[in-house]
Amino acid sequence: MLGTMAIVAIVGAGVMGSAVAFPLTDNGHTVRLVGTHLDGEIIDSVQESSFHPRLNRSLPSSVRAWRLEQISKALDGVDLIVSGVNSYGVEWQGQTLGKTLTKAVPIVAITKGLEIDGDGSLLSLTTKLERDIRSAGGPKCEVSGIGGPCIAGELAGRRQSCVLVGSQSLERASWIAGLLRTDYYHIQPTEKIFALEIGVALKNAYTLGVGIASGMLEREGGEDEAGALMFNLQAAVFAQGTSEIRYVLGAHGAPEHFAASLPGAGDYYVTVMGGRNIKLGRLLGSGLSTAEAFRKLEGITLEGVSIVRAMGRALPKLYERDVLKPERLPLLEYLIATIEGERAEPFPLERFFVDL
Amino acid sequence: MLGTMAIVAIVGAGVMGSAVAFPLTDNGHTVRLVGTHLDGEIIDSVQESSFHPRLNRSLPSSVRAWRLEQISKALDGVDLIVSGVNSYGVEWQGQTLGKTLTKAVPIVAITKGLEIDGDGSLLSLTTKLERDIRSAGGPKCEVSGIGGPCIAGELAGRRQSCVLVGSQSLERASWIAGLLRTDYYHIQPTEKIFALEIGVALKNAYTLGVGIASGMLEREGGEDEAGALMFNLQAAVFAQGTSEIRYVLGAHGAPEHFAASLPGAGDYYVTVMGGRNIKLGRLLGSGLSTAEAFRKLEGITLEGVSIVRAMGRALPKLYERDVLKPERLPLLEYLIATIEGERAEPFPLERFFVDL
Repeated sequence: MLGTMAIVAIVGAGVMGSAVAFPLTDNGHTVRLVGTHLDGEIIDSVQESSFHPRLNRSLPSSVRAWRLEQISKALDGVDLIVSGVNSYGVEWQGQTLGKTLTKAVPIVAITKGLEIDGDGSLLSLTTKLERDIRSAGGPKCEVSGIGGPCIAGELAGRRQSCVLVGSQSLERASWIAGLLRTDYYHIQPTEKIFALEIGVALKNAYTLGVGIASGMLEREGGEDEAGALMFNLQAAVFAQGTSEIRYVLGAHGAPEHFAASLPGAGDYYVTVMGGRNIKLGRLLGSGLSTAEAFRKLEGITLEGVSIVRAMGRALPKLYERDVLKPERLPLLEYLIATIEGERAEPFPLERFFVDL
Repeated sequence: MLGTMAIVAIVGAGVMGSAVAFPLTDNGHTVRLVGTHLDGEIIDSVQESSFHPRLNRSLPSSVRAWRLEQISKALDGVDLIVSGVNSYGVEWQGQTLGKTLTKAVPIVAITKGLEIDGDGSLLSLTTKLERDIRSAGGPKCEVSGIGGPCIAGELAGRRQSCVLVGSQSLERASWIAGLLRTDYYHIQPTEKIFALEIGVALKNAYTLGVGIASGMLEREGGEDEAGALMFNLQAAVFAQGTSEIRYVLGAHGAPEHFAASLPGAGDYYVTVMGGRNIKLGRLLGSGLSTAEAFRKLEGITLEGVSIVRAMGRALPKLYERDVLKPERLPLLEYLIATIEGERAEPFPLERFFVDL
C-alpha cells in the first residue's frame, strides 16, 4: 500500500458492493470488482462498457471487473476486500475466500443479516464469515461491517449518505473509514460491531411490521369518509420496533442507544421508505395469505423474512437461557407468527409499550 | 364520579382536543366540549348538528358543546379536564382555568411544545400550565400530558393509535389511561412525564430537518438519470434527530430510551409522514429563503419553529451551565441557524454520529 492509496477488491458485484466502488475510486484507490457465479452478465457489461445494468449507471472507468475464475489474480496484493454478497451469499463467500486467500487480508462486509448459533445465540454475519473462511482452510481474517441507511443507487449517484463501519478495534474501523470517507459518503468508525450488525439486521425484520400496518389501510378500503389514513398505526409499529431493537441490544450487553441512531431508527426509516421487505409486509397487511404473498414475490431476496425465521429459531432458546423475555418482544413474536402462519392478524397493540 | 363513569370537560375544541371525545364517549363518560374564543364556529356547528368542521366528521351525539361564556357551568362538577389547546394557547388556558376553577381538578393536556425558564432550563408545558393556573389565582391542579404519534383525524376515525399519558405519579397516569383506553386507543401510563413531553416537543423541531432533506431532492431536480432519490439523507437526518433527543433526555436525567419509543421515533415518524412542520422544511430545502417559506405558510401554526426558537434561546445558557454540549447537537444547531438565518445551507453531516 503506497501512501494512502490502497488496492481494494470487491467480491460480489451486486448493487451495494458495486456502489462502494464510487467512494473508493473517488479517493484514488485501485478497485477490482470480482463477480460471483451469479454476476456473469454484470461483469461482462462492466468489462465491455463500464455500465452496471442493475445500478443502471456506469461505474467509474478505473474500476476493473474480473470474472470469478480469475479471483486468485484479482485478490493478489490487495489491502482490503469488500464482501459484496447479501446474506444468502455469506457461506459461498467464506468458502471462496477460504480457498483463495493464502494470507490474512482485512475484509469489510456490506451484508445485512444474522445467523443463529447452536445455543440460540445471535451471530453477526461478520463473525460467521470469519469462521467460514477458517473452516474452508483460509487464514484468520479480521472482518468488519458497514451498516446504516444506504440505498445503493443513491451511493452510486454520490448522494449524501451517513453510515457506520464497525470492527473489533476502533483502529481498524478508523482505517477503513479513512479509505472510504468522501464529501458525500460520511462514514464513522465504531468498535461496537455487534450492536451495529444486529441492529441493522433486526430493522429488516421490523420493516415487515410497518409494511403490514401500511397494507392494512388498503384492506380497510383506504382513507375513510373524513379522510383519515392510518399513519398512527404505522408509527406505533415503527416505535415498537426501535424499542425492541433497543431491548435486544441491551440484553446482549451491547450499547442500546444504537437503536436511536443510524443502525436502528435511521436504517429502519430508509428501509420503510423503499425496498422489498416493506412490499412483502404490504401484501400481508392487505389481506393476502402468507403463501400468496410469498408467491407474488418469488425469486426476490427477502432478508427480512430470513431474519424473522432465524429469530423464530433463536427465541425459545434465548427465553430458556433467560437472555430475553417474551413479554418484551410482542412485535417480533407477532412477525414470527405471521411469517410461519397463514396470514397477518391484527397487531397485539395492548401488549406494546408496557416497558416504560 | 359514579362507578367508573366520569364527567370530562374538554377545553379547546380544535381537532386534537375534540378527537379525545371519541374514546371518552365510547367508554360511557359524559363529555362537555368547551370552545375557546377562536372556536366559535366549531361550537355553533357541533351544537347544531354534532358536525365538527375541522375534523370533517360528526362528534358522538352525546357530546355537548359549550361556548366560552358558559365555561363556569361547563366545568362544574367535572372529574377531569382535557386541555385541548395548542402551545400558543397554553397561557390563555392557564388564565382561563385559573380564573374559573374554584377547586383543584386533574387536568390532562394534549399540547406539544416546551418553554424556557430564565436560566435556560427546559420547561414542559404541563408544568407551565400548572404554574399559570396558580398565577391567575387558581388552585394547584395536577396537570398530566398525553404524547405519542396520534393524528387527530385518525383518532376521531377510531383508527388504531398508541400513545402514552404521563403524570407526576403512576397512579394518576393509570387513572387517566383507564378513562381513555379503548380497543382502538391504546394508552399506557408513565410517571416519566418530563421525558414524554420534551421528547414529543423536540421531535417537532427535528421534523423540520427531515423536511429540509426532502426538499433538497426537489432542489437537485428530483431523481437523477439512474433513478436515485435521496432517502439516505432523510434517514441520516431522522437518525441524528432521534440521537439528539436521546442525548437531551439523558443529559436531564430523564430516561433516554424514550427516544427509541413512542415519544421519540414514533411521534417523529408520524410527524414526518404528514403535517405542517414537514411542509415548512420542504420549502426551506427546496431553496426558498426562510422569509419566503414563512410567508407561504402565513397564518399556519408551526410548533416546530417555536420549539427551534425556544431551544435557540435555551442552548447558550445550557452550554454555559454545562448541562449540554454543542458538539452533541449539530442538527439542532443547524436548525436554529436555518430558522434564524436566511436560508437552509447543506447539513453538517461530517459532524453527525460522532458520539458512538
